Amino acid sequence: MRNELTVAVVGVGAVGQEMVRVLRQRRFPARELRLLARTARELEVDGERFRVGVTEDAAFAGVDVALFAGTEGEKGAAVTFAEGAIRRGAVVIDNGNDFRMDPRVPLVVPEVNAARAPENEGIVANPNCCTIPLTCVLKPLHEAAGLRRVRVATYQSLSGAGASNMQRLAETQPHELDLLMEWDFDGEEFDEETKLREETRKIMELPELPISASCIRVPVMVGHAETVWVETESPLSADDARSLLAAAPSVRLDDFPSPGKAAGLDEVLVGRIRQDPTDSNGLVLFLACDNLRKGAALNAIQIAELLLGRAAARAA
Amino acid sequence: MRNELTVAVVGVGAVGQEMVRVLRQRRFPARELRLLARTARELEVDGERFRVGVTEDAAFAGVDVALFAGTEGEKGAAVTFAEGAIRRGAVVIDNGNDFRMDPRVPLVVPEVNAARAPENEGIVANPNCCTIPLTCVLKPLHEAAGLRRVRVATYQSLSGAGASNMQRLAETQPHELDLLMEWDFDGEEFDEETKLREETRKIMELPELPISASCIRVPVMVGHAETVWVETESPLSADDARSLLAAAPSVRLDDFPSPGKAAGLDEVLVGRIRQDPTDSNGLVLFLACDNLRKGAALNAIQIAELLLGRAAARAA
Repeated sequence: MRNELTVAVVGVGAVGQEMVRVLRQRRFPARELRLLARTARELEVDGERFRVGVTEDAAFAGVDVALFAGTEGEKGAAVTFAEGAIRRGAVVIDNGNDFRMDPRVPLVVPEVNAARAPENEGIVANPNCCTIPLTCVLKPLHEAAGLRRVRVATYQSLSGAGASNMQRLAETQPHELDLLMEWDFDGEEFDEETKLREETRKIMELPELPISASCIRVPVMVGHAETVWVETESPLSADDARSLLAAAPSVRLDDFPSPGKAAGLDEVLVGRIRQDPTDSNGLVLFLACDNLRKGAALNAIQIAELLLGRAAARAA
Repeated sequence: MRNELTVAVVGVGAVGQEMVRVLRQRRFPARELRLLARTARELEVDGERFRVGVTEDAAFAGVDVALFAGTEGEKGAAVTFAEGAIRRGAVVIDNGNDFRMDPRVPLVVPEVNAARAPENEGIVANPNCCTIPLTCVLKPLHEAAGLRRVRVATYQSLSGAGASNMQRLAETQPHELDLLMEWDFDGEEFDEETKLREETRKIMELPELPISASCIRVPVMVGHAETVWVETESPLSADDARSLLAAAPSVRLDDFPSPGKAAGLDEVLVGRIRQDPTDSNGLVLFLACDNLRKGAALNAIQIAELLLGRAAARAA
């Protein structure tokens, strides 16, 4: 990869700050890291101080990679600014929800469908923070035994709803802690549940895969967890599933995964893999993932690395 | 009912205190309310002061109804003291786990299997705090369409693990809030998951009912929630399920049930009832229940009322 890239991070909430952190931790070859938000400000991430500029078309001049964090307050920034950024020569990776289901836009989890990333017209979409760990786990099971049905109950942390909700949790009295369901509701399900189904189908390239999701936000700061019931076409023992998952990229077996254990890790923790006692072709498992890292920032930067790796390979 | 009953409450943790509260709120006909615990102490419940005596055989002299709270610290008290209490003329209602699966002991949710309560030899068992709301909701669906399979993901509050765990949550820093799984594990599942399956089968009188449970404790003080996938033998529309549940005893429809909404209520809140998109005979729903009330103390006292009502009817 060239070491003279100019990288923009648009939105400096929970995900945007994690993007800066991950770029630094992975020594992403950025000559310049340009932080943009609705309003100019100063920002410190892991001891490094940044001046945050205002997101406007001109701010993308010279930008090679534009990472849109897509968090609240900056939501839809890609709708307004991605086209201009692309015209100025940037590749856009959007963690927002606006382009994920656009058939012209690849929706990529590098461990699952890396081949789709280069098929872009300037934008690659980063999936929802529950979809990413789910597809990392479903992929090896599908390749081995074929997915027939998936049911998912989520335990999502407050950081998935942005920095202001983390602040809200920090200020909540213990007796007022509760489960939250602050998503758009279409009369049937939350948009979060629809996203989880539709994005999983697109990434897995299984457009008819039956998926039922029930999403709940729990009073935890960072880390999403999911109980997953999987039915496969061919029988798959819990032991075989465990072996497959142990070998899967970005997946780590853990006896009892939890958000607290997953926070700060790059891998999806998976455990409690057992036969579903109600179905001979069924498995139950529990996963946990740092929703800000693999669930958002890290996956976006892996996409950037994938695109740049290809570019480097082409140039060589 | 006679108004000169002597009622003992054994264990004065979260459930024991709620038993005192519910007895007073329902104007249970107690001439004397005798609180017992491992050590003597003073206790105030809703402004009323009690002297807590030491649990010993002699303390059950003259007791008509002995409610064993079965909370931590007092666990197994019924194993030690129930027989003596019965010999002294008491009927024992045990919220602990020791007798629930004993074939000679009825395990009762009054809305589901009231007829079993009188078939006792001195002890009636009160089910697990997740089993009670689950069976209240499953019962009308089973009667209408027959249950084929049930999958449950729980969101259980800290009060279900006793007063000391409520204190622990109160002292937890916001950034340290996490999901907990502090149950015995048999290498396959938590005992909490086994209980939920076995107790539901016993109460519903469906000894082969396929049930898969995934239990998680969430950082919430009071109120348990459950996402439930139900497959029925005959098709049952979400609208019909909603009508059945609206008419079911101790069940109240709510668009978005949560532990916070359920806390302090006597009913199980049920909502988000929708077709399971993966199965034509499947439904998904979400329930929430005050685990200390209907999930424990209230159900135990309803059992007492049931037994006393019968006794009164026999005497008349």
